[in-house]
Amino acid sequence: MKTVEVTASKNYRVVIGNALLPHLGDFLSQVCKAQKIAIVSDSNVWPLFGKTVTDALAGYETVSFVFPAGEESKNGATYLRLLNFLAENKLTGSDCLVALGGGVVGDLTGFAAATYRRGIAYVQVPTTVLAAVDSSVGGKTAIDLDSGKNLAGAFHQPSLVLCDLDTLNTLPKDIFRDGCAEIIKYGVLYDEGLFAHLEEKGLAFDRKQVISRCVELKRDVVARDEFDRGERQKLNLGHTLGHGIEACSHYEISHGSAVAAGMAMVSRLAQKLGICSASCALRIEQVLKAFGLPTNSQFSAKELYQCALSDKKRSGATVNLILPEKIGFCRIAPTDITKMEAYIEMGR
Amino acid sequence: MKTVEVTASKNYRVVIGNALLPHLGDFLSQVCKAQKIAIVSDSNVWPLFGKTVTDALAGYETVSFVFPAGEESKNGATYLRLLNFLAENKLTGSDCLVALGGGVVGDLTGFAAATYRRGIAYVQVPTTVLAAVDSSVGGKTAIDLDSGKNLAGAFHQPSLVLCDLDTLNTLPKDIFRDGCAEIIKYGVLYDEGLFAHLEEKGLAFDRKQVISRCVELKRDVVARDEFDRGERQKLNLGHTLGHGIEACSHYEISHGSAVAAGMAMVSRLAQKLGICSASCALRIEQVLKAFGLPTNSQFSAKELYQCALSDKKRSGATVNLILPEKIGFCRIAPTDITKMEAYIEMGR
Repeated sequence: MKTVEVTASKNYRVVIGNALLPHLGDFLSQVCKAQKIAIVSDSNVWPLFGKTVTDALAGYETVSFVFPAGEESKNGATYLRLLNFLAENKLTGSDCLVALGGGVVGDLTGFAAATYRRGIAYVQVPTTVLAAVDSSVGGKTAIDLDSGKNLAGAFHQPSLVLCDLDTLNTLPKDIFRDGCAEIIKYGVLYDEGLFAHLEEKGLAFDRKQVISRCVELKRDVVARDEFDRGERQKLNLGHTLGHGIEACSHYEISHGSAVAAGMAMVSRLAQKLGICSASCALRIEQVLKAFGLPTNSQFSAKELYQCALSDKKRSGATVNLILPEKIGFCRIAPTDITKMEAYIEMGR
Repeated sequence: MKTVEVTASKNYRVVIGNALLPHLGDFLSQVCKAQKIAIVSDSNVWPLFGKTVTDALAGYETVSFVFPAGEESKNGATYLRLLNFLAENKLTGSDCLVALGGGVVGDLTGFAAATYRRGIAYVQVPTTVLAAVDSSVGGKTAIDLDSGKNLAGAFHQPSLVLCDLDTLNTLPKDIFRDGCAEIIKYGVLYDEGLFAHLEEKGLAFDRKQVISRCVELKRDVVARDEFDRGERQKLNLGHTLGHGIEACSHYEISHGSAVAAGMAMVSRLAQKLGICSASCALRIEQVLKAFGLPTNSQFSAKELYQCALSDKKRSGATVNLILPEKIGFCRIAPTDITKMEAYIEMGR
């Protein structure tokens, strides 16, 4: 078992290890005084772990809210249904939510927790790689709007993140691979040692070590820039184009695959702009391929430009592109929006 | 023109005076770098002041979102429509919302601003007494859920509050009176001088002085307890029973009238419990009557108890009742929920 302490507007622990789910009640009792707990999960995850988690919370009154799995559930309608569910079940301001699932469950539950009675406690129990290394830590919560992903949300730190590595064993291969795109991202951004380990081991990487390391790296970013005004933007490496790819595909292409392709594209762009070496761009492309992740997009530069324009990272007429300088270090490059189409073409 | 400086997680000014609306653009340019401004208003207020405000913002690109007036619009559906409106109009994180109207407009706009792209700037332009002295200051934003009022929301301070006293001249008499319940509340809570002025002048009170004083008092509370964990609960004087009355009447009875009745009831309760004198309770009742506000409820103690139970101020099995000790000072009395029905009966 490894523990990472997060320091933000609220301090909390991320606990990573095996066979942790049955101990959720013990961990939870240390961080909140809830009487009632609402477990939020989706139709994929609930059948697998719902009973274990409910049993682990036998000391509490529990209710459960299960919605259809998939990004398309992360919307305003599900959010309002969840809020009404909490109100009907009379959860008070001192009660607690448990997000049992991947990024969609975590983002949606976190947003409901941020706003129900102007904020109640919640615990993240990530069951995907993506949620474990990225979305469950750092307090960014959100739902999608018709016009784009994550357009409504709040910053609201969880009270605890409990990452039971055993849950990752049940993941379909493509979902597992998908989350690995975010792991590779941390290597490119901050840690050549981590990157080299991924190059060497591929999908057989040391899960506990790697996930803990990613959480530590994210913890450090969140401590420096909780509210996404500077440094934290680096975590968007591959995401500006990634979101464009997702949107162009009407979300047929998964987040991780889109981010992987976006990361490869900005790496090639960085190389052509003389910001990183050819071998750096090549290593990024090769490790993505080794993980079975895509490194390019079927959509034209024009299509991606259209979709990237409505990306939420846009501020005025400038896009902050994250560009690798070398493995382990990237820069934030404020880029005039009018240059973007040509840049995307350079990266294809 | 009077200016009150609010010190909270964000500092901002409340400007109170006559003929201020035409200068909104100048004030706004000092507090945010928006290019686009979404003016949010309702079907009562927009026809009166929409053009003045739009003209005042001629230096910006403006869009407007107008919804049907009334508490029943302060719901999840309007909130999501507003968020989608902002996204469709491509407002960025550096753009700004303007809430032009009363408490419903301010609460809803504030909540949308708190959550659109995880928080953008907004300006409160209150056009009712209630909004001017209470809901526009302090950053509490909310929407109602099916199960109760203000059950979803966030703390999000505005960048500016611009209170043009001329807008109050257009208020229907009952809406004006309604807001006065909150003014009387500030007198009972904090300021016997203010209370005495209201006793002496009745509805002909000095608007600029009184509204400024109430804003100062609220400013002081917010500075001490922005997130409603202690002192700020005192602002709920009359509200626990008031919310019960509103709910029992299916919101036929207005907020101010319900709070007035709730305030009179807890005053009589405080007297019977020996917490305040008979003359204190009588003065509160008399000033409410002088303003044409109700001092009792048609609903039984049992009915109000049922409705007050689902009040959001409940935490576990304790209700924090706010009870007057004398004019200008109240106490927070944590009260076992099982005593509440008898207490309500004592206050009737």
